[in-house]
Amino acid sequence: MKLYHYWQSSASWRVRWALAIKGIPFESVMIDLRAGVQHSAEHRARSPNGSIPVLELDDGRRLTESVAILEYLDETHPEPPLYPRGDAWLMARTRQIVELVNAGTQPLQNPIVLARAASDDAGKRAFAAFFNERGMRALETVLGETAGRFAVGDSLSAADLCVVPQVSGARRWGVQMEQFPKVLAVEAAALATPHAAGALPANQPGAPQP
Amino acid sequence: MKLYHYWQSSASWRVRWALAIKGIPFESVMIDLRAGVQHSAEHRARSPNGSIPVLELDDGRRLTESVAILEYLDETHPEPPLYPRGDAWLMARTRQIVELVNAGTQPLQNPIVLARAASDDAGKRAFAAFFNERGMRALETVLGETAGRFAVGDSLSAADLCVVPQVSGARRWGVQMEQFPKVLAVEAAALATPHAAGALPANQPGAPQP
Repeated sequence: MKLYHYWQSSASWRVRWALAIKGIPFESVMIDLRAGVQHSAEHRARSPNGSIPVLELDDGRRLTESVAILEYLDETHPEPPLYPRGDAWLMARTRQIVELVNAGTQPLQNPIVLARAASDDAGKRAFAAFFNERGMRALETVLGETAGRFAVGDSLSAADLCVVPQVSGARRWGVQMEQFPKVLAVEAAALATPHAAGALPANQPGAPQP
Repeated sequence: MKLYHYWQSSASWRVRWALAIKGIPFESVMIDLRAGVQHSAEHRARSPNGSIPVLELDDGRRLTESVAILEYLDETHPEPPLYPRGDAWLMARTRQIVELVNAGTQPLQNPIVLARAASDDAGKRAFAAFFNERGMRALETVLGETAGRFAVGDSLSAADLCVVPQVSGARRWGVQMEQFPKVLAVEAAALATPHAAGALPANQPGAPQP
């Protein structure tokens, strides 16, 4: 498989992490969002709205939308599971958390959205911070009902793979994360799992080195 | 079951439609978004960020996020199917379309988002129209690869249940829909199916009468 992604993209991070957990080897192609490569004709032929990540299968078929990719990887490579199959209610709770991030928070801090939501950096930052804080507040409530060691019970799931990158985004936008102790506990537990480090933005090509 | 929804909410429309297709009876409770009922303490106890729809099960458990609800209804009430189970690739394509609407378009026209994205009605309208048109363009491309009679092949699916309400939104925001003939063909086919009419916004309590 081939993954088109970017070190700082939270949706890319989710998919990199899933591929690592599943032990699926992939060719990594960085799409430099800062340089605008996502708007090139070449990339738009891969992704209808220029988004990343894009997963390309060995036969050339391509899939966008990180949540569709996570579900696809879990259906085609069931072990270790990223969804609590066999328990419809826990499946629903996992997807509820996934959507609170993927639809309820992440889109509202995308560069293309911020460019139209505010005319200066302070305005963009305030917009992104407001929706990240709102998202974290909703997650704190839901995790209070669903979390064990991880976001849903005691197994790492797609919910954790969405929550952790969003927490990183929220922090970057200046959200005071100590308001959300359950979110922080879930983040810490997920980041301590074996395949977390390799998927971190800081460990991707192109990321600024300390 | 009990559904908390609103006649004009596109995410509510998706779930009403799914319940009708599945033949699941439900008690309908309208949350008047225009009157701000979603912000009440009573509703926030049901929904962590005040969103609708909320599905309440007979035992009192509650679920938010329309996509999580659609998947839950399909897993617990498999007939007639709303996802192409057994074909992982078509499942992925269905979810890709669902997310292009649910994460890629719908959040970018929500009242709470528009209130912060622009200071006047013309600005809000331009913001919502831009992201609806962008979403429709992506859908037109993907449907060119996936659609048969419906959004994915020849069976009505969750993809149609997301596309149709978004087309209605795009039209309301002034998007010229004739640019997107595949989207319009899918919309027409889906609206001609047996349970479509009962789920329409215009046929809900509180909707303006012609």
